Amino acid sequence: MSKLKMNIGILGLGLIGGSLGFDLRSQGHHILGVSRRESTCQKAVAIGSVDEASVDLSLLAAAEVVFICTPLALIVPQLEQMIAHLSTATIVTDVGSAKAQIVKAISPLWDNFIGGHPMAGRTDSGIEAAQRNLFVDKPYVLTPIATTPTSAIAVVEEIVRSLGANIYYCQPEQHDRAVSWISHLPVMVSSSLIAACLSETDPDVLELAQKLASSGFRDTSRVGGGNPELGVMMARYNRQALLRSLQQYRHNLDELTNLIEQENWTVLEQKLKSTGKARPDFVD
Amino acid sequence: MSKLKMNIGILGLGLIGGSLGFDLRSQGHHILGVSRRESTCQKAVAIGSVDEASVDLSLLAAAEVVFICTPLALIVPQLEQMIAHLSTATIVTDVGSAKAQIVKAISPLWDNFIGGHPMAGRTDSGIEAAQRNLFVDKPYVLTPIATTPTSAIAVVEEIVRSLGANIYYCQPEQHDRAVSWISHLPVMVSSSLIAACLSETDPDVLELAQKLASSGFRDTSRVGGGNPELGVMMARYNRQALLRSLQQYRHNLDELTNLIEQENWTVLEQKLKSTGKARPDFVD
Repeated sequence: MSKLKMNIGILGLGLIGGSLGFDLRSQGHHILGVSRRESTCQKAVAIGSVDEASVDLSLLAAAEVVFICTPLALIVPQLEQMIAHLSTATIVTDVGSAKAQIVKAISPLWDNFIGGHPMAGRTDSGIEAAQRNLFVDKPYVLTPIATTPTSAIAVVEEIVRSLGANIYYCQPEQHDRAVSWISHLPVMVSSSLIAACLSETDPDVLELAQKLASSGFRDTSRVGGGNPELGVMMARYNRQALLRSLQQYRHNLDELTNLIEQENWTVLEQKLKSTGKARPDFVD
Repeated sequence: MSKLKMNIGILGLGLIGGSLGFDLRSQGHHILGVSRRESTCQKAVAIGSVDEASVDLSLLAAAEVVFICTPLALIVPQLEQMIAHLSTATIVTDVGSAKAQIVKAISPLWDNFIGGHPMAGRTDSGIEAAQRNLFVDKPYVLTPIATTPTSAIAVVEEIVRSLGANIYYCQPEQHDRAVSWISHLPVMVSSSLIAACLSETDPDVLELAQKLASSGFRDTSRVGGGNPELGVMMARYNRQALLRSLQQYRHNLDELTNLIEQENWTVLEQKLKSTGKARPDFVD
């Protein structure tokens, strides 16, 4: 299959943007990178993630497709500034981890837009963390809506497929509900666990808990000890779905608590069995 | 330092009992093992975890110290049957993961008792999982009470120290509160997470969540997908401390939920920061 070589713009040269650049450039596309920092632009060119880089959005005028890879809060403001420089034929996509708010805000501003979310996050961030083949065998969600041009879907799908990612299509709201269950809710659940432990009023017990904590606590508390700015962004941009998940979670927690209060060990065991049985459907 | 070689009884030849046997036998102690199953007795002798083994509790008559290594629910019933065979000088200890109820039940039955809890659990169980040096650098909690004879404490402490474990002393109730925070609460928190996800009513969203779940969900849900019988035992034998932890946890979860409802991103970020900062005090 012969592939069209395109001019592809990447706005935001961090882990995702920098990694995208590596893979797309190695396929022969011409990569135009934009970052707010001159030092990041220089680094991205030096490591070979992009062909050209600039702090000026006008570099993207030549792009046929633009990936917006900034933090969530900057996606819409940056798009608003960027569109003055683009040809109306330019296809725009983003990589934000929440979709409904973003898609709703962008669709009246730019017709040729399709929301996206590669699930390839890592702990490290920044252009220094960029790597080749980051997206191979990773999920990549695309969230077209009724008004999204078929051509925009086709072009972005082909690019994403070339990264080796597994593509999933859904509505923006479905994406947000799914990630609220498996990504955003776990952060709040896990952070609350640490907070609860810290409320222990007997200093001897708190110290003992700290000494005795091992792999179970380590795993359950990991995402609650992660990047706080990222946690807030999840809550801000996926507020509605997250609140819905939290409310449901509270219900399930109350159910277990009531069973323990009532010493209903038979049903408690059934509940624990059913969650143990269901877990491999999520992580195998 | 010269060490006294003793007759040491082990009641219950699973992961913990079998591993104890290996280490104590290699120090020259004479190990008497009792299991409910003849096949386990034969296996324990064959692999060299014990010198002698029997399904009959009378084998323990010669023991100077007995470790009760049965599941939690069997500790008190087995002790009740066992004591008819013991000399009053025999020191008894257990390895149960909850202490207050056990210590309270045993202290009127046997003076020479000290509660213990080695934190060396693994996923595998049974005599097949027994291994040498399981307790090295692992916490081992001892919970003497006012009436515990000093000699019993000294003897058990010396044995536990010889395993290479890190010894912590505390009251049974303090132990139970500490493990409810870092071991028992996480199971309920984690199981509720899986249960909440399963409540999703849109089958497309549930399937998408299952496809998109990665390391964050894997870690947060791990202990909730564990052994259900063990989860019930924790709840049964540490009910009071666990209910207290669950109540506090619910409070912390409600606090985060309210901040998200009120869009108070500044305080939400402070909360997430503080839990991130506190986590290394538990797991470093």
